[in-house]
Amino acid sequence: MAVGYETLPPLAPVAGVRVATACAGIKQPERRDLVLFELAEGSRVAAVFTQNRFRAAPVSIAEAHLRQHTPRYWLINTGYANAGTGVQGLADAQACCQAVAAQADCPLEQVLPFSTGVIAEPLPVDRITAAVPDLMRTLTSTGWEDAAHGIMTTDTVAKGVTRDCEAGYRVTGIVKGAGMIRPNMATMLAFLTTDAEVAPELLDEALRTAVGLSFNRITVDGDTSTNDACVVAATGAGSAPAITTQGAAYDAFIADLTAVCIELAQLLVRDGEGATRFVAVDVTGAAETAEAERVAFTVAESPLVKTALFAGDPNWGRILAAVGRAGIDDLDVNRVTLSLGDMRLAENGGRVADYREETAAALMNRDEIVIRIDLGRGDQAATVWTCDFSYDYVRINAEYRS
Amino acid sequence: MAVGYETLPPLAPVAGVRVATACAGIKQPERRDLVLFELAEGSRVAAVFTQNRFRAAPVSIAEAHLRQHTPRYWLINTGYANAGTGVQGLADAQACCQAVAAQADCPLEQVLPFSTGVIAEPLPVDRITAAVPDLMRTLTSTGWEDAAHGIMTTDTVAKGVTRDCEAGYRVTGIVKGAGMIRPNMATMLAFLTTDAEVAPELLDEALRTAVGLSFNRITVDGDTSTNDACVVAATGAGSAPAITTQGAAYDAFIADLTAVCIELAQLLVRDGEGATRFVAVDVTGAAETAEAERVAFTVAESPLVKTALFAGDPNWGRILAAVGRAGIDDLDVNRVTLSLGDMRLAENGGRVADYREETAAALMNRDEIVIRIDLGRGDQAATVWTCDFSYDYVRINAEYRS
Repeated sequence: MAVGYETLPPLAPVAGVRVATACAGIKQPERRDLVLFELAEGSRVAAVFTQNRFRAAPVSIAEAHLRQHTPRYWLINTGYANAGTGVQGLADAQACCQAVAAQADCPLEQVLPFSTGVIAEPLPVDRITAAVPDLMRTLTSTGWEDAAHGIMTTDTVAKGVTRDCEAGYRVTGIVKGAGMIRPNMATMLAFLTTDAEVAPELLDEALRTAVGLSFNRITVDGDTSTNDACVVAATGAGSAPAITTQGAAYDAFIADLTAVCIELAQLLVRDGEGATRFVAVDVTGAAETAEAERVAFTVAESPLVKTALFAGDPNWGRILAAVGRAGIDDLDVNRVTLSLGDMRLAENGGRVADYREETAAALMNRDEIVIRIDLGRGDQAATVWTCDFSYDYVRINAEYRS
Repeated sequence: MAVGYETLPPLAPVAGVRVATACAGIKQPERRDLVLFELAEGSRVAAVFTQNRFRAAPVSIAEAHLRQHTPRYWLINTGYANAGTGVQGLADAQACCQAVAAQADCPLEQVLPFSTGVIAEPLPVDRITAAVPDLMRTLTSTGWEDAAHGIMTTDTVAKGVTRDCEAGYRVTGIVKGAGMIRPNMATMLAFLTTDAEVAPELLDEALRTAVGLSFNRITVDGDTSTNDACVVAATGAGSAPAITTQGAAYDAFIADLTAVCIELAQLLVRDGEGATRFVAVDVTGAAETAEAERVAFTVAESPLVKTALFAGDPNWGRILAAVGRAGIDDLDVNRVTLSLGDMRLAENGGRVADYREETAAALMNRDEIVIRIDLGRGDQAATVWTCDFSYDYVRINAEYRS
C-alpha cells in the first residue's frame, strides 16, 4: 500500500480529451493493459523522454512522431517495455501506431506510442492491434480512472491528480511507476492534460521546468528506466484566456503544472516498490543547486540509509557517510548540520550535545520523514523525495518475472 | 556464509611482524575486538585512506602520524568507527595511540589507529587502553588468524591471504568488510605485510597501483565507508634482494601485491552482506578505462540487477538499462554486446537470434557469475566484482544496531 495515499481520487474530465481502456490480454488475462488518449484538433503537445541510452523503441518513435506532426493519439500498453528489442521493436511500435491511424483515419505520425513492463522481450503486437477498434469505439471524456489503472505495472494503487487552477483552466494527469525510478528528464509514463491554450514553445518550456522540479527529483532505487516519458497536452478547449507570451499568466501556468507534477512524482515515491515510509531529503546551504541535488540523491539512494529508514533506526551516521561521499571535495564537515524534521542531530562533525536517542528513534519511526541537511556553503537548495528499502523491495524485484 | 570461501586458510608469519589480539569488551563481551601489530625497526609503511569527507577520526590521525614518523604499531578496534564524533573523536583516537606509545616507549606518532563499527557513537577509550598492556605482553609472530577474527564486524568469516612469491619474499594480509563497501582509494581495513625490502616511495606507488586494481574495483552496496584504510608494511627482514629502483624486480613486486589485494578484495565481496552469489562484471571495448569502470560499477550497483541476480532470474534487460544510464552520451547501443560467461545474450540492441531462456536461467543460477559487456568503442577494459542483493542484506542492515 502506498504511504499516505490510499486510493485514486475522482479525476475530472478535461475539455478536448477523451480516453479509453481495454483488457487486451497482453501479458495477463482480464486486466486493463491498454489505454488510448484522443486529443482535440489544435491541441499542443510537449514531452520529455528518458536519457537512458538503451531507450525503448516506443520512446524513439514517439520522439520522432512528435517532431513531424501534432499528436492526436497516445497509445499506452503495459506488460512489455519494448526496450532492448532492436529493429524489430521499432517495427512493432510502428505497427501499433498504424492500427490506431487506420481506425482514426489520420497520419501515422499523429500517434505516439508508450510501453512499460518487462525489458528485452518482444511486444505481442497482434493482441494490441486487435484491441484498437474497441478502444476507438469506447473513447469517453470520463474514462480517466480506468486509464490510471490501465497503465500500472508493479504499482499497488492507481495514481492521478486533478486541479482546477485559479486562472480558469484545469489540469488532470495520471502517472505510473514504482521501481526503476530515478527519472532523468522524465519519469516512467506521466500523462498530463489541460484545457488551457498555451503556445507550443511555452508549453515545452513549462513542462521542462515542472519536470526538473518534480519527476527529476525523485528516486526509488536509482535505476533510470528505458521507457521514461512525461507528456502534456494543452487542448485550448477551455474558456481561460490563451497564454501566448511570457508574463504573469505564463508564470502561474508553470507554477500550476509544477504543483501537479510534484504531487504526481510524490505519488510514485509513496508507492515505491516495498515502500513503508515517504522521505524528503531537504538539502540547503549548497554552493550550487546541482551540488544540493547531488548530495540529496546520494543520501536518498544509499542502501544503508534506506535500510535504516526501513528499520526506523536513527542510525544517522550513515546519512553523514553518504553526504561525505557525495563528491564535494572541499566540504567542511564541521559546517554541516543534520536534522530529522526540526530536531538537530549533528553539528561540528559530531552529534549535538543534548542528543537524545529516544527522540531520534521516535522521529525515524514516522511514516513520513524529513531529513534536513545544511551544508553551510551557500544559499542554494534542493529537495529529493524517496522511500525506504524493505524486504518487499527485494521480493518484488526477485519475483518480477515469475 | 561467504560464496566460494569456507574458512580462513593458515596465515604464515612474516619476518619482522608480530601480532596480538584481545577481548576488550568494547561492544560485546568475550569477542576478539582489539588487535595490535608491531613492525620491526626499519620497516617501510605505505597507506591509502577513504575519500569520504566524513572521514573517521582515526583516519585523520593515522594519516598525520604517517607523515610525521615511521610507524612501529597499528592498533585496530572493532565495535565503534569513531566517525562523526567531532573533536572528541580525535582526542579519543590519540588517547588510544598514547596508551600504546607509553607501553612501547616510542613516540606517539609511531602508532597508527584504525577503527570500524557503528558511526557517530563515542569510542569507549577506557576499555581499549585498559587492554593495551595485555596486547603488548602477548605479541607473537603467529597471531594472524586471531587478528583476522579480531577486526571483523558484520563479516561472517575471517579473511586473509598468504603468498610466498617467486622473488623470495612473502606477503601476508588480512582484511575485513561486508557492507558499506564501495572503496574509494582503499577499503574498510586491509592490513598487508611483507618481509621484502622496498624503498618507501616505491612501496607507496606499488600500493596505489595494487589498490586501484583490487579494492577500488569492488562494491557491495555503493556506500563508501568513513573508515576505509589499506596499509602495507615492508619489514625488509627477509632474505630477498632489496627493491630500490624501478625495473623488473619492482614490477614483479607490484604484480605480487596486486594479486594479493585482488584475492582479498574478492573475499570482501564473497562475504558481502547477504551475498548468495559472487559476480564479476567484465567490461571491454571501452574508449577509456574510466568509462569501463563507470559502466561496470553502474551495473554492479543497480538494485534491479542485484535482485535479479539474487533470484537467479536472467532478466538481463536490467543490465542493458544500467549500461544505458551509465553516462556515456554517445553510446551506440547497436554495438554493445552482453554475455553471461561465454553465452552471448544480446547484440544489435536486442537479444540474439538463437536466444534460449533455459540456458540463460541455468547460467544465472550459478554461485559464481561473469557478466561480460563489450561496448564496441575501443580497447580499454575493467572488471568490477560484486554480489547480489538479498533479503539478508536488508535484514542485516535493518537490525545492525539492535
